[in-house]
Amino acid sequence: MQTECSVAFIPDNLSVHVPVGTPLLRAATLAGLELTSACGGKGTCGRCVLRIVKGTADPGDEASLPAKYRGDGYVLACKARVQGDITVEVPGDSRLIEHQVLVDSSLLAEELVGLGDAYPFAPICRSVDLSLDEPTLVANASDLTRLQAELRRRAGLEDLRTNLAALRQLGGTLRACGWKVSAHVAEHHPGQAELIAVSPGHGERKYGLAVDIGTTTVVVDLVDLATGLTVDKRGTYNKQARYGDDVIARIIHAAEDATGLKDLTEAARETINELIDRLLGKHGLRQDDLLAATCAGNTTMTHLFLGVDPRHIRVEPYIPTATCFPVVRAGELGLRLHPGAPVVPLPAVASYVGGDVVAGVLATGLARSDSLLLFIDIGTNGEIVLGNKEFMVACSCSAGPCFEGGGISNGMRAMKGAIQRLHIDPATYAVEYDTIAGARPIGLCGSGLVDALAELRRAGIIDRAGKFVGERKSPSLRRTDEDWEFVVAPGSATECGRDLCITESDVKNLIRAKAAVYAGISTLLRMVGMDLEAVERIYIAGGFGSYLNVKDAVGIGLLPDVDPARYRFIGNSSVKGAKLCLLSKEAKAEAEEIARRMTYLELSLGNTFMDEFVQALFLPHTNLKLFPSAAVQEAIQ
Amino acid sequence: MQTECSVAFIPDNLSVHVPVGTPLLRAATLAGLELTSACGGKGTCGRCVLRIVKGTADPGDEASLPAKYRGDGYVLACKARVQGDITVEVPGDSRLIEHQVLVDSSLLAEELVGLGDAYPFAPICRSVDLSLDEPTLVANASDLTRLQAELRRRAGLEDLRTNLAALRQLGGTLRACGWKVSAHVAEHHPGQAELIAVSPGHGERKYGLAVDIGTTTVVVDLVDLATGLTVDKRGTYNKQARYGDDVIARIIHAAEDATGLKDLTEAARETINELIDRLLGKHGLRQDDLLAATCAGNTTMTHLFLGVDPRHIRVEPYIPTATCFPVVRAGELGLRLHPGAPVVPLPAVASYVGGDVVAGVLATGLARSDSLLLFIDIGTNGEIVLGNKEFMVACSCSAGPCFEGGGISNGMRAMKGAIQRLHIDPATYAVEYDTIAGARPIGLCGSGLVDALAELRRAGIIDRAGKFVGERKSPSLRRTDEDWEFVVAPGSATECGRDLCITESDVKNLIRAKAAVYAGISTLLRMVGMDLEAVERIYIAGGFGSYLNVKDAVGIGLLPDVDPARYRFIGNSSVKGAKLCLLSKEAKAEAEEIARRMTYLELSLGNTFMDEFVQALFLPHTNLKLFPSAAVQEAIQ
Repeated sequence: MQTECSVAFIPDNLSVHVPVGTPLLRAATLAGLELTSACGGKGTCGRCVLRIVKGTADPGDEASLPAKYRGDGYVLACKARVQGDITVEVPGDSRLIEHQVLVDSSLLAEELVGLGDAYPFAPICRSVDLSLDEPTLVANASDLTRLQAELRRRAGLEDLRTNLAALRQLGGTLRACGWKVSAHVAEHHPGQAELIAVSPGHGERKYGLAVDIGTTTVVVDLVDLATGLTVDKRGTYNKQARYGDDVIARIIHAAEDATGLKDLTEAARETINELIDRLLGKHGLRQDDLLAATCAGNTTMTHLFLGVDPRHIRVEPYIPTATCFPVVRAGELGLRLHPGAPVVPLPAVASYVGGDVVAGVLATGLARSDSLLLFIDIGTNGEIVLGNKEFMVACSCSAGPCFEGGGISNGMRAMKGAIQRLHIDPATYAVEYDTIAGARPIGLCGSGLVDALAELRRAGIIDRAGKFVGERKSPSLRRTDEDWEFVVAPGSATECGRDLCITESDVKNLIRAKAAVYAGISTLLRMVGMDLEAVERIYIAGGFGSYLNVKDAVGIGLLPDVDPARYRFIGNSSVKGAKLCLLSKEAKAEAEEIARRMTYLELSLGNTFMDEFVQALFLPHTNLKLFPSAAVQEAIQ
Repeated sequence: MQTECSVAFIPDNLSVHVPVGTPLLRAATLAGLELTSACGGKGTCGRCVLRIVKGTADPGDEASLPAKYRGDGYVLACKARVQGDITVEVPGDSRLIEHQVLVDSSLLAEELVGLGDAYPFAPICRSVDLSLDEPTLVANASDLTRLQAELRRRAGLEDLRTNLAALRQLGGTLRACGWKVSAHVAEHHPGQAELIAVSPGHGERKYGLAVDIGTTTVVVDLVDLATGLTVDKRGTYNKQARYGDDVIARIIHAAEDATGLKDLTEAARETINELIDRLLGKHGLRQDDLLAATCAGNTTMTHLFLGVDPRHIRVEPYIPTATCFPVVRAGELGLRLHPGAPVVPLPAVASYVGGDVVAGVLATGLARSDSLLLFIDIGTNGEIVLGNKEFMVACSCSAGPCFEGGGISNGMRAMKGAIQRLHIDPATYAVEYDTIAGARPIGLCGSGLVDALAELRRAGIIDRAGKFVGERKSPSLRRTDEDWEFVVAPGSATECGRDLCITESDVKNLIRAKAAVYAGISTLLRMVGMDLEAVERIYIAGGFGSYLNVKDAVGIGLLPDVDPARYRFIGNSSVKGAKLCLLSKEAKAEAEEIARRMTYLELSLGNTFMDEFVQALFLPHTNLKLFPSAAVQEAIQ
């Protein structure tokens, strides 16, 4: 009988091994998770709720489990005991300190400036204050006709349509406030306006949402439609994670489970709605104050969000149902905005180059640039765009989830307690590290893993192929039954009391991931017959973007070896591009143009990518001439 | 204690007086209603279900009442006993012979010819058969892009949008049928096409619906969108009748009952859905075969149908929320067409000149006519339009529901057993009559009532003011405690065994109704400074249109005294106009143009209408010069 079990916590990507019979609360603590509890684990407060998504546990006394959690795998962490290998989801409410997704606030100030420069401020939904004449027996036009005439006169809006929700509230609102109203009009299609809502009185602030639907995380920006300013932002994990970590696993769930597609669409909706609720609650707003949303996601995420079957994306020839998506009313999708609010999905290019990439390209200005630019988005996948105002080519390389902590023994996402930087003393193998929020370490996030790879090589612990060759006798370097491993942080220093290690197979996985990204870049350049020297600037987007150490990323051959001054870290460019589309009809039109203009390169066609990939499976690369700055170091060793 | 109670049956407008304790089944039989029953009234078959909408009855043994009818006022007619005055609704399922609304089939052949003459055949939804190339790794456009390209090439459709429902089925359908599909595209807005659905294979027939939402009756035409031919039609009573007979009663219910608006919207939806179900069942079609609908109704009906509060229509200055309505998807309204099918409400002119009148004007060609035409729609209200291609003026006169049998003691709608024609022998007061379907008489419908009024006057039984002055001693003419009355059919001849009479107050009501219509016509003519001689043709639309005896209608002063050859009876012009809009984008655009161009005359403004009305309160009119043909007869008497 099994006596030790593995307990994996999602969405954190943390796992521990504990004896059979261990309470889940203890396992969570060992994994570095802090759960909320008011009774100190006595089983009376009913707050440390977890959900078992795989495997089983003995639920124990469930008397205090709140009614809303009954069934569907929920248990109390303090009462439930581990019986075998198990995967457990940690709901946001159950966390002592909510592990919010890091939302990038550095762009708040600059982005408005950027918008002002590049695009006229003309949100896809605007509000017009109107004072209408009261009707009489003689001047007896209908309410809508009266409103249309005034909107034509005051705002130049011709051929104003309306939706049913707006029409249903129109008569009552006009009369309740003495014919002084604010009309909220969407202009998401060129030359065509639609009345979304009418609110009583003048000057009421209305808001829009820019949404990034990532495979792993979802971020929502709350934007004041009158000023264009971002009022607040929230991020969280995509609840779809319970059905699989990456797009492929989710497509399989959508295709093969009877309720799969519905599950995933609901999970996306719930994720966004929870973020909306938090934003509304914090700012004292109502659902009806939210009048438009733009959503950027990869092609699979956009299909799932809209409830469109993505199964054909996964099988050759990899065809999505659509790359341009209809504008949908929030009510149709069950999103908690005004039911008539337009929800605009950003257009995609192909199955593996989605609206998130289009948004990023929009945000960088690549499509308007005279000089050649490179855009690299490293998330659960890696997407790369090369181009300028003349041409754009894009590809997607299956980098895998390594850089988000997936598939790495002590990998984790960039959250509190993640090692994000580290240095290994080549003489002593002693490790110095920084963790997010200065907490005791729980694992290594993407930037920490890049550093680790570079430092392991620099210290001579691994060779150029990633094989462990360190000869120094040190407690940090050891061999287990299965593998070589290097101890980054000893159990005495970590949150969970276990050693945090990086193994030889972790190293191999990271090398494959970095090689895929680099090979994608090389293949695009080769395709257009240009070399890196012609690229004026390289934009790095994605979750770990702004925390990445360029020198180390170049050192391991993830990024090309060019002057570091040519790199720009732009964080979550997906939500930034979505926001541009929310605030400028012209930007939205340009996003559509970008999606049309961009040429998608299918890497599985021909041998170029595979050749480049194989050559990149060394640290930093087979061909050291491509990495002159690294070559110096290699020469020393 | 009350020993005799009144039992009113709706929507038939039939009522009887019976002793307290009478079973409802007996009361129904006395009223001439035949209810379905398999057990002979033993209370075991559960089929004679009625619904009490006002008053109460002792339900008796309800063991056999089907579960779906429990609550909400349903009882078994054979078990429930009358306890006081009561109003009872007779569901269609409970009738032995379903009293279907008479749908006018005489236009089936001619209308297609008319359409061909006047408007190009270009339905607002069309089907295009496509054979697409299968995608490859190289030709890897999305399914939608591939379809759009082919529709552009084959059908010249630019900028094709889609809806969510179509998108959700696209990928599966294309692959299930080897890329050979039929694309169904709506073009309800000029220059803008929307993909509604894709069906596998080629050549499948798709259908549209033309709907007339009358206050009293609802008619649905099933139309083949490929040929324009009307495949079938169905009519029934508007289930809203349970909340009131006329638009005013329904507006009050909508405004004053907490669930009033919802009730009425649901009742309209259910009425239409039941007709749809019957059409689908009969022709072996599926819901998804119905790809578009056009709906014509008066302004209140259209508001209620769309769930828009109509309360401001009823109070001065009588302002509707809208006269132009948005195109709505069937799914949004819960109508049983394809969920993405566009439902196009015809535009209205004002609160009391609705889309049904616009449809009628469209169907008559009035708006394109060189010569002056008059359009008169006599339904629950009376609407009149005067005009040609240069101008159009319209008014609505509160004729009341007399001509549909409302407010008349033995009035009823034009259904089986209704007296539709009658003649009174001036010498003997003997009555000859015709009933619909040759059945034993149950009551008098509109055309019968017009005849009765004319004949009562002709026989000298009433004077020009409608007062009973008949001097001949006859069992047909008698005085009750309350009123004078004339027996049209003795109890020995009638279905219910009671005498069918017409009373002095019935006569007064009919005179007021006919005076309102005539005064409306006079007021419109006076407004534009023209007289009847300038009117080349008079179109009579409405439920009783084609059964009306022009000579008698002129005789009583309902219609102007012009050459009978100038009259045209066009039956249900509302559904005919709706059908034109379904089958021709150009006709639909013209309906919008008609609604914009038509000038609405509010009759409550100024004294003209009231003066005309008072003058018309005689038979045929105060001024006999206006009725030369009647004047001859009056001179004789």
